[in-house]
Amino acid sequence: MFIINDTKLKEFVIDVFLQMGCPEEDALLAANVLLAADLRGVDSHGVARLTGYVRLWEAGRINPTPNWKVTYQTPSTATIDGDAGLGLVIAPKAMQVAIEKAENVGSGWISVKNSNHFGIAGYHSMLAAEKDMIGWSMTNASPLVAPTHSKERMLGTNPIAIAIPAGEENDFVADFATSTVANGKLEILQRKNEDTPNGWVQDKDGNSTNNAAALKDGGALLPLGSEPMRSNHKGYCLGSAVDILSAVLSGAGYGPWAPPFVSFLPLASDPVGEGLGHFLGAMRVDGFRPKEEFKSHMDNWIRRFKSATPIDESQRVLIPGEPELENTAYRLKNGIPLLEPVVRDLEEVAKKLKLDKLKF
Amino acid sequence: MFIINDTKLKEFVIDVFLQMGCPEEDALLAANVLLAADLRGVDSHGVARLTGYVRLWEAGRINPTPNWKVTYQTPSTATIDGDAGLGLVIAPKAMQVAIEKAENVGSGWISVKNSNHFGIAGYHSMLAAEKDMIGWSMTNASPLVAPTHSKERMLGTNPIAIAIPAGEENDFVADFATSTVANGKLEILQRKNEDTPNGWVQDKDGNSTNNAAALKDGGALLPLGSEPMRSNHKGYCLGSAVDILSAVLSGAGYGPWAPPFVSFLPLASDPVGEGLGHFLGAMRVDGFRPKEEFKSHMDNWIRRFKSATPIDESQRVLIPGEPELENTAYRLKNGIPLLEPVVRDLEEVAKKLKLDKLKF
Repeated sequence: MFIINDTKLKEFVIDVFLQMGCPEEDALLAANVLLAADLRGVDSHGVARLTGYVRLWEAGRINPTPNWKVTYQTPSTATIDGDAGLGLVIAPKAMQVAIEKAENVGSGWISVKNSNHFGIAGYHSMLAAEKDMIGWSMTNASPLVAPTHSKERMLGTNPIAIAIPAGEENDFVADFATSTVANGKLEILQRKNEDTPNGWVQDKDGNSTNNAAALKDGGALLPLGSEPMRSNHKGYCLGSAVDILSAVLSGAGYGPWAPPFVSFLPLASDPVGEGLGHFLGAMRVDGFRPKEEFKSHMDNWIRRFKSATPIDESQRVLIPGEPELENTAYRLKNGIPLLEPVVRDLEEVAKKLKLDKLKF
Repeated sequence: MFIINDTKLKEFVIDVFLQMGCPEEDALLAANVLLAADLRGVDSHGVARLTGYVRLWEAGRINPTPNWKVTYQTPSTATIDGDAGLGLVIAPKAMQVAIEKAENVGSGWISVKNSNHFGIAGYHSMLAAEKDMIGWSMTNASPLVAPTHSKERMLGTNPIAIAIPAGEENDFVADFATSTVANGKLEILQRKNEDTPNGWVQDKDGNSTNNAAALKDGGALLPLGSEPMRSNHKGYCLGSAVDILSAVLSGAGYGPWAPPFVSFLPLASDPVGEGLGHFLGAMRVDGFRPKEEFKSHMDNWIRRFKSATPIDESQRVLIPGEPELENTAYRLKNGIPLLEPVVRDLEEVAKKLKLDKLKF
């Protein structure tokens, strides 16, 4: 395990994006999104993915200087063509469009096509919460999840993030994959050579398994709910809705046609849309009731839930976003832990792009 | 088991609402919503609940002639005060406001306070889909669900429905509680004297149990995901978001302050808002891309998912809304099955309101 200061890590990430040809503003934005994941403890979506973005760029699948544009709109809705840019850059810019629409008519909803992986969903919805709006953010992703009764992988882990502003309390930030667990959790178990709990994955024939490597052998992640008897059709519904809002609505590749994140997998030979899709929304809370009134009730909601009687005195009820805030405070002070394979990957990236090695 | 023709049943339900003092238009609307549940096979939310509405009316908690109004708005958002009306009436009328806003500015989002139970969520979102819009519908409800790590019930089963229009295929209609299962499923097992599968409920101390009567003994439903190890914090996040959008945003009773559906339970002595809350939304699909283009890709999405390789050849992958459509077709032709206790309840209602007995 290596520990690195967040500012040093961010400078390195900015340099990588600059070397890829991104404009300075975009390189900074993309680095902010990646670092937010590492600070919040979502290690699978931070710099651990940097090498993946570089490989997609090498394969010509990421355009570092996208000429993104609104292609279709009404006062409260729009579709944005991301011009194959980094999702890390396109998504926060699309959220700005949503925020402007919300400022004008109360809410703004943007479906994005022709984009790439956008990092953690929570980052984008938090941009709206900072403006006293409820922020929504979703994306489709490489197909890894099998619908209820399916052997075949049809959906990505298709996350949903909802950020809701509070007053004195910290904002409510829910950010979760619509599968039972995200792929990152399997990767951790594989490194440790451990089995998965029941209900996370199925093997290539659709049978339940505890093999953390099942995905590599043609298996699939299970939708939120884990098994049909525990209502995993609800996770399938949610993942499907995210896919449709992000990709069918915008004109991106949907379902099994969603482009893979790993550059060594080929793109669909019969594409139904362009790139990956996102869906972003912002709703002004004062489009519904006076802002201070809303925030004071949000504070009351949060305090009441924090004080719910716990099953075990040592583990109180948490508010969505609380663990991520604690991680951020800790890592800003003590540094960001990086696993050895991640450091090796970053060193390889540095060499490839003729950058100085990451300093610890 | 009794079988009754849907038209006869609907006439009876209309008469009940008329006797409660509802205007003709409202009685018809409320009956349509209840019958939609019985036709779609969501038996727990249809006429089985009629006696519950009547009791709430007797207790003075339902106003049959509500003077509902928009109390706050922007071009794409609004809050509606339901004036303690039937949710069965207020919710579809609120959806009409959402649809009008969407016609004007692309989308419309309505948070409703001071309402009551609104029947099946799917009915309301389908009103938008009929207009080539994506319809959203949610509601908070009596607290029966324990958040992750909580012994205490803090949330309702807080359902979410999303209806998405297709072209030649049937519309996509997802409609599900954000708990692992809805209370109706427990009631069925209790009648049969059977245990629940694992992961549906916890007992009053927060321990897992298979006792279908656990709720009556102070236990709680578990959030979607079923157990912490299977990510039930995600169901807790979803249920919380529904609660906040429906009730904190509008000014209704939220969390444990949500008013109970059963009239024998008292209202909170320290209310934080008025009545129950809903959240309804409509987004024009042609606010994002040409309507026919969207619909043809929706058809393609649906066909591809229907043809996903099944685990078991005898059970193909279903599209959200498919089983409910099959039920509707069957029950329109063959009648609606009613359990004996439901028929007894309806006979009691008829007697109480001096109506003719239900004829089979």
